[in-house]
Amino acid sequence: MAIKVFGSFISTATMRVLLCLDEKGLAYEFVPVNLAASDHKGEPFLSLNPFGQVPAFEDGDLMLFESRAINQYIAHTHADKGTPLIYEDPKKMALVSVWAEVEAQRYDPPAAKLTWELGIKPVIEMAADDAIVQEQGDQLAKVLDVYEARLAQSKYLGGDSFSLADLHHLPTLNYLMGTGARAVFDSRPHVSAWCADILTRPAWQKVLAMITNHYRSVSYSKLCYV
Amino acid sequence: MAIKVFGSFISTATMRVLLCLDEKGLAYEFVPVNLAASDHKGEPFLSLNPFGQVPAFEDGDLMLFESRAINQYIAHTHADKGTPLIYEDPKKMALVSVWAEVEAQRYDPPAAKLTWELGIKPVIEMAADDAIVQEQGDQLAKVLDVYEARLAQSKYLGGDSFSLADLHHLPTLNYLMGTGARAVFDSRPHVSAWCADILTRPAWQKVLAMITNHYRSVSYSKLCYV
Repeated sequence: MAIKVFGSFISTATMRVLLCLDEKGLAYEFVPVNLAASDHKGEPFLSLNPFGQVPAFEDGDLMLFESRAINQYIAHTHADKGTPLIYEDPKKMALVSVWAEVEAQRYDPPAAKLTWELGIKPVIEMAADDAIVQEQGDQLAKVLDVYEARLAQSKYLGGDSFSLADLHHLPTLNYLMGTGARAVFDSRPHVSAWCADILTRPAWQKVLAMITNHYRSVSYSKLCYV
Repeated sequence: MAIKVFGSFISTATMRVLLCLDEKGLAYEFVPVNLAASDHKGEPFLSLNPFGQVPAFEDGDLMLFESRAINQYIAHTHADKGTPLIYEDPKKMALVSVWAEVEAQRYDPPAAKLTWELGIKPVIEMAADDAIVQEQGDQLAKVLDVYEARLAQSKYLGGDSFSLADLHHLPTLNYLMGTGARAVFDSRPHVSAWCADILTRPAWQKVLAMITNHYRSVSYSKLCYV
């Protein structure tokens, strides 16, 4: 049975899963969830994810939620297809796990708040909160200082090759590169080179093209987030 | 070479790793880090964890940080010892990953803030912030509503047996059961039964005994957190 992803093209967590499927070269069906109509806060969506957030994921009789857990499943189940994303060697894999945790626990909190303030609010004609932008920008800068040191020693965060640890950054990274927060990445040479590398990956370009085509094909409304 | 854990007995993240090692029946050396002296914010600790937080972990030439990543490494590398904690079956393992993500992303943020306000501040004679306690308590209650539904259908969060998804809750859970936040667990029958089950696990009792013996054996100071 086909893989299905229930989500929204505006959602970074949804993009994270689509990107993983494209890195693996897997076919899937995208099922849009209308966030503006709060479809994610009622049935039938709550049966897919009781926390009421996109995405949800279906693979035959298996139902999953939480984008990073979905991607772990995809990477382990289809280890032999497309980009490896994980390592068989347990010590190499442990470093992927460490930096995947760093993304989730340290990078994503400020990056997600900045994405909302600088990447999404302008689209829906809301004003950014300057105090939050300053505070979260400072927080992100401290995280990227550690990344700069890591990437001076290792081409990718998890090791010598692109892995889940890098992949999970791309949706917020892409949003932020189109905002004033870009400077915090560009001012760190190894971070900047890493961004340029991963943002041009064919699988990510494919996800972006799908999103662009979607917005061209629908009667676009600022309130229609799907 | 022996496994070493660099940490503090007051740190829930440190306890999480010690518990995993005890569930696996592995020998290890505990190396205390003096948080009151800010030893975690300078060298040599920053070479172990550039984010300056306990714990750090050493297994021969492998150095790791981030407690949940350390535990994944331990569980996968020593899959045949002690409590399994993970599944070989990829679909079963995917559900452990989902609920481990739920712990990290949804349970831990309010649980950690409540642990600080209600579990740690009183010990160091600071007053809890009632507004934070109310807000985070409400947030935790919503998360536990989802847990109650899950645990009505599954003995443990990740499946039929105790796994990393359950294990990661124990340190904050243990703190909170000694505070006013206990009511939010006790008022949900399946959550309450799950708490009673996992809190009495021999490995957790062993960790608690080690911490108790440590505080008995040192000249206790409110500012000496190790």
